[in-house]
Amino acid sequence: MNKIYNPTADSWASILERPTKTVNDIEGTVKEIFAAIQKDGDLAVAKYTTQFDGVSFENIEVTTAEIEAAIASLPADLKDAIALAKANVETFHKVQQTTRVSVETVEGVQCWQEKRPIQKVGLYIPGGTAPLFSTVLMLAVPAKIAGCKEIVLCSPPDKQGNINPAILYAANLCGVTKIIKVGGIQAIAGMTFGTNSIPKVYKIFGPGNQYVTVAKQLATQFGVAIDMPAGPSELLMVADDTAVPAFVASDLLSQAEHGTDSQVILVSTSKSMMDAVENEIQSQLEVLPRKAIAEKAIANSKLIFVENDEIALDLINEYGPEHFIVCTANNDFYVDNIENAGSVFIGNYTPESAGDYASGTNHTLPTNGYAKNYSGVNLDSFMKSMTFQKISEKGIQNIGKAIEIMAEAEGLQAHKNAVTLRLAEIKKRK
Amino acid sequence: MNKIYNPTADSWASILERPTKTVNDIEGTVKEIFAAIQKDGDLAVAKYTTQFDGVSFENIEVTTAEIEAAIASLPADLKDAIALAKANVETFHKVQQTTRVSVETVEGVQCWQEKRPIQKVGLYIPGGTAPLFSTVLMLAVPAKIAGCKEIVLCSPPDKQGNINPAILYAANLCGVTKIIKVGGIQAIAGMTFGTNSIPKVYKIFGPGNQYVTVAKQLATQFGVAIDMPAGPSELLMVADDTAVPAFVASDLLSQAEHGTDSQVILVSTSKSMMDAVENEIQSQLEVLPRKAIAEKAIANSKLIFVENDEIALDLINEYGPEHFIVCTANNDFYVDNIENAGSVFIGNYTPESAGDYASGTNHTLPTNGYAKNYSGVNLDSFMKSMTFQKISEKGIQNIGKAIEIMAEAEGLQAHKNAVTLRLAEIKKRK
Repeated sequence: MNKIYNPTADSWASILERPTKTVNDIEGTVKEIFAAIQKDGDLAVAKYTTQFDGVSFENIEVTTAEIEAAIASLPADLKDAIALAKANVETFHKVQQTTRVSVETVEGVQCWQEKRPIQKVGLYIPGGTAPLFSTVLMLAVPAKIAGCKEIVLCSPPDKQGNINPAILYAANLCGVTKIIKVGGIQAIAGMTFGTNSIPKVYKIFGPGNQYVTVAKQLATQFGVAIDMPAGPSELLMVADDTAVPAFVASDLLSQAEHGTDSQVILVSTSKSMMDAVENEIQSQLEVLPRKAIAEKAIANSKLIFVENDEIALDLINEYGPEHFIVCTANNDFYVDNIENAGSVFIGNYTPESAGDYASGTNHTLPTNGYAKNYSGVNLDSFMKSMTFQKISEKGIQNIGKAIEIMAEAEGLQAHKNAVTLRLAEIKKRK
Repeated sequence: MNKIYNPTADSWASILERPTKTVNDIEGTVKEIFAAIQKDGDLAVAKYTTQFDGVSFENIEVTTAEIEAAIASLPADLKDAIALAKANVETFHKVQQTTRVSVETVEGVQCWQEKRPIQKVGLYIPGGTAPLFSTVLMLAVPAKIAGCKEIVLCSPPDKQGNINPAILYAANLCGVTKIIKVGGIQAIAGMTFGTNSIPKVYKIFGPGNQYVTVAKQLATQFGVAIDMPAGPSELLMVADDTAVPAFVASDLLSQAEHGTDSQVILVSTSKSMMDAVENEIQSQLEVLPRKAIAEKAIANSKLIFVENDEIALDLINEYGPEHFIVCTANNDFYVDNIENAGSVFIGNYTPESAGDYASGTNHTLPTNGYAKNYSGVNLDSFMKSMTFQKISEKGIQNIGKAIEIMAEAEGLQAHKNAVTLRLAEIKKRK
């Protein structure tokens, strides 16, 4: 752990720097796979599945029988836990529903804004050691509430050609319309171009490794939208003497176990709290199954002492953390003034893992400083807003002159004509 | 004009195909300029301004004296027109303001969502023949309402080193905090990296030519967000015998004058309306100052006859027009069922130019089929939504068990520990 005391503001940028990743060496591979799948469709998908996942099989769409087997295999207590989490995620995303916003800007000029669902969305769920069924909830629940017609889920098969039953269970529960056993770059390429087995979608959501991240970036060059650019997960916590060192340590460690590149930062106005947390981390770390991973992330972590809450806040806003936990005597100050953060966790009994699983907020959040310019996934992520306007004869008479003058000043005569013709016709009739 | 009668659904994709542009040849230039400006800052900016705009000068920030001169030079009727347009854009974007959305998902678990402004935004306004001061209103007004702290505007200088006074006037009126005389790739690169003269921003908005479009795409690889990918402007109009041929023709032409690559499509259930519109276009075209441009766009335009409104709607949703004008006996059917469109104009007295200038809706809209997955610029474009959660002892007791089970099933023991520790501490105390 790196302890830093009272860093000057001009050193913040270097202290808070995230590890930069070069994607150039990956880009070639990603482009090659995209080109192959655009050209050869399912044939190319099968080839890369064999190559990367070490398995080959005929039907890549998950069958009803497979889903039924997954449902039967899952322990009851896990089903109950998923049900509770799903209910909370539903509750929180349903209250985000908005109604049409309408206003008569001037007499006779009615304007309104409505959100309508993105019709076809694709959800990517990584495979590997941790089967992220919680991410299925976080993406499929709002997609369903938004009213997306087609909800496609892609996840890589294991060596036996199966997807983890908890992922299948959650996908089925949340109304995913099609589950495809395909992972990595080939999944993103498949949803970008469409193949016989994989539907083409309009927007792709979900986490993934570096390959998936680069593939999602490339997908945007082919007309597909993505939820947000991804980076390693990160947590910044601010804690003073009102915090509980053991709790603080447990939160920092729960972030650290994600990956060796996870970012863990503690900001504190108390040196003794910093020391106590450091000790707690060492003892809690010992018993973790993912100790090897967490240890590396913790080695790169930073404990930063600052003199007061104002300085802490400025530093935190400069960083823009994905997850931001606040445990201080002054929580409202942070909550009211935080400008850049993905999700904020307030108080001693609000661990980050609550938001990861079951509080109801979404865990798909902007990392890598993107909290400065991107929202986390929310209901609106699955919709687009459209505007409407309906102008009466009276209305065009009210704004027509202004349009004519502005169009002429911009040198767009035909724009002006469209109004002039209408005004003349109204005048002639009257 | 290409008249197409009753096209079969399997031919829609090719009929509705937009001209594809290859950006590969531009990409090299854009990357080179980005690298130079990242390295040499203002020095490189000056070099490219000389090269591309044919002008060089010391101070690239617009001064108060220049703004005052612009204010003095602008005709009163244009100022009045801008004032009216600004008021309507303000009215429409102010009603889009939302309050915090809050819910207790289960007892003791309070979750809420708040939108906070993106602190630093950059607005790009093209130069050239048409000084798009209307776009200044469309971007700066919502940025101001959102509460963005820094609103930077870049626009290329003319041969005398000036920006069009109407652009300066509108920028000053709308609260732009800094106006910089820089255009094209160098403007986008400048706002991406920041230079001594050009502030680094978090999100870049605004239209531009192919170079600007590719530069904005590249900017996203350096952590900057953009409003949306751009493409040539387009209009699809559906009209039956209740429409006025002269009005329809004037709307199609106002789209056509934007550029030779503008997309203009008329869908109709009336063959006689199609013929009448064709004649009207010919006669109105003759007197247009931008006839040469409009003529080329019109030559590529399509008039498509279909049997009924249902088929028309399917075809329109497949296309996803940026601008969609509806003039039929059945307007509500289209308005209620349109799934993909940027902005919708309803009835005989609602020309597209109303939305371009003064109705109040935003004219920065998704083109190129992006209406399927992107919103047009709106108030939320200048904000990001953040989530918050505050859990009480009771709350963590209510959801703790579910978190423990899910975290364990995902193999994330430290996530589980963060809850277990808290539950144990509560139990011990009680």
